[in-house]
Amino acid sequence: MNEFELIKHCFNWPQNNSDIICAVGDDASIVQVPSGYELVQSIDTQVADVHFPASAPPQLIAQRALRCAISDLAAMGAKPQAFHLALSLPKDTSKTWLESFSSGLRNCADEYSISLIGGDTTSCPSIVITIQVQGIVPSGKALTRDKAQAADNIWVTGNIGDAAGALPLILNNPELSIDLAKAYYYPQAQIQLGLALVGIANSALDISDGLLQDASHIAKASNCTLNIHSDRIPLSPLLRDKYPYAQALDYALTGGDDYQILFTAPTESDNKILNIAQLLSVPCTKIGHVIATSSPSITLDGIDTNNLYHDQGYQHFNDQ
Amino acid sequence: MNEFELIKHCFNWPQNNSDIICAVGDDASIVQVPSGYELVQSIDTQVADVHFPASAPPQLIAQRALRCAISDLAAMGAKPQAFHLALSLPKDTSKTWLESFSSGLRNCADEYSISLIGGDTTSCPSIVITIQVQGIVPSGKALTRDKAQAADNIWVTGNIGDAAGALPLILNNPELSIDLAKAYYYPQAQIQLGLALVGIANSALDISDGLLQDASHIAKASNCTLNIHSDRIPLSPLLRDKYPYAQALDYALTGGDDYQILFTAPTESDNKILNIAQLLSVPCTKIGHVIATSSPSITLDGIDTNNLYHDQGYQHFNDQ
Repeated sequence: MNEFELIKHCFNWPQNNSDIICAVGDDASIVQVPSGYELVQSIDTQVADVHFPASAPPQLIAQRALRCAISDLAAMGAKPQAFHLALSLPKDTSKTWLESFSSGLRNCADEYSISLIGGDTTSCPSIVITIQVQGIVPSGKALTRDKAQAADNIWVTGNIGDAAGALPLILNNPELSIDLAKAYYYPQAQIQLGLALVGIANSALDISDGLLQDASHIAKASNCTLNIHSDRIPLSPLLRDKYPYAQALDYALTGGDDYQILFTAPTESDNKILNIAQLLSVPCTKIGHVIATSSPSITLDGIDTNNLYHDQGYQHFNDQ
Repeated sequence: MNEFELIKHCFNWPQNNSDIICAVGDDASIVQVPSGYELVQSIDTQVADVHFPASAPPQLIAQRALRCAISDLAAMGAKPQAFHLALSLPKDTSKTWLESFSSGLRNCADEYSISLIGGDTTSCPSIVITIQVQGIVPSGKALTRDKAQAADNIWVTGNIGDAAGALPLILNNPELSIDLAKAYYYPQAQIQLGLALVGIANSALDISDGLLQDASHIAKASNCTLNIHSDRIPLSPLLRDKYPYAQALDYALTGGDDYQILFTAPTESDNKILNIAQLLSVPCTKIGHVIATSSPSITLDGIDTNNLYHDQGYQHFNDQ
């Protein structure tokens, strides 16, 4: 099977979205964006043995990469439309591996109603997966990081820290044999919640690099301080069972990979948010509030986290 | 400099396109597509020592990667709008390397009036550059591969084979010290020509993997045979100086990386095309014509190329 047959075989399934004019197979894809909407786009790369164990099951690798990318759409309040896949693989990758990868990708794409519309396959010593996702949002309504307001409550979805707590266990055994591994391999891109928060939340992002570090992006973009109460951060029973409290909290504060949504909203929206949470079965927990400031920061129980933590989350590159 | 400061420093320059609502800095970018237009998108990966020598000057690597990606927009008749960059780099990459990469990228982006609107930087043992580009085209007017008509003339822009002829020389010396190297490092994405061909050409693509192989994509998609006259294929004096005729022709037929446009158009458009070529100073050469067929193929001087060449172009993956 040559490159083109391989792509046709593994990455060219029928799409049923009338906004997709041309998918896989030409020099480029063609989409239309409905009138009154803007296009929200994100690109994410995952590298073997950096973002996932190279020996993990390919269907898990594929669907996790897509979930992580789609999570950015959730954080913007966008409805998934389409994605492109750039896949770099070692020359000796087997057809079986590729078919399994393709199957995991397709199942996940179906779950989120997102169409694969193009891609590129290349050879590379490492497995490198880059996924570009796009979705639509009513013009001017995207949830961004720069509109948090003083007195907003700070909310998070789900539990925080599970994926970071799972990682050392997975590195020992990449198979899906422990409960906590699900949080790592199956992050839930909170699309329905993101859509419901449009017009309600003032700011939002997804927690991919650690709660403190990601919260600091809102603080900097919105020029405010976010005060977080450590005892309100939702930690799962699974995480608490596996680790002492201090370690579990540390995973929540500085670990990554949870892909839960952190958002801020005015107090008068509390009931709306709790109703949405119940309706969608997505737990939402108030973990703090926004404070007007002249110097953006994150405070944990009132103490500036710069004084508590040198590293507040995952850094791909260190000081140079 | 940490990851976020590095991105801000190297990949966050001002954009001046009113269709860009939100660029680098949030979970995702936001663009609008003007009414009456569709969005054309492509994604391309280049891997060190597969697509370019790892030791090549970083500004050349960057701008070449962007040119190659933009070429797909030219082949579709689209006007460049924006791009996302996913950059994977070894941990020990120097700030100097990155600044040089960034400078080459920005110069090229300015040349093509295309805005950098988002990206991702990750660590990886190899340098892997994935660029997603997008442009706009009036709805329904994109140049695709599937509408070549019997009796269409087959045209190519520029000279063919220069980049493939340059490659063995560059692999010996990655610096830009030989004339032929320019064809490799500075492929010209034929954007103006692509825009001018909308409504004139019936089909088009860019030649990235070799003339015969890329021509076969049009043959298959349009269900026709493309007959190419070998003596009409434009070979540059530089290529002819460096190699015997048979070798030069082989580079043109089966080498890649030229990023010239191959298109088909009805005979009555000949004068229009020659006028456009003169106006834009982009040589266009008629190299053959399209033949109705029940079995799509490429014939060279009337002989089926499947009988002449086993490998008709670059394959990232071989038979497995």
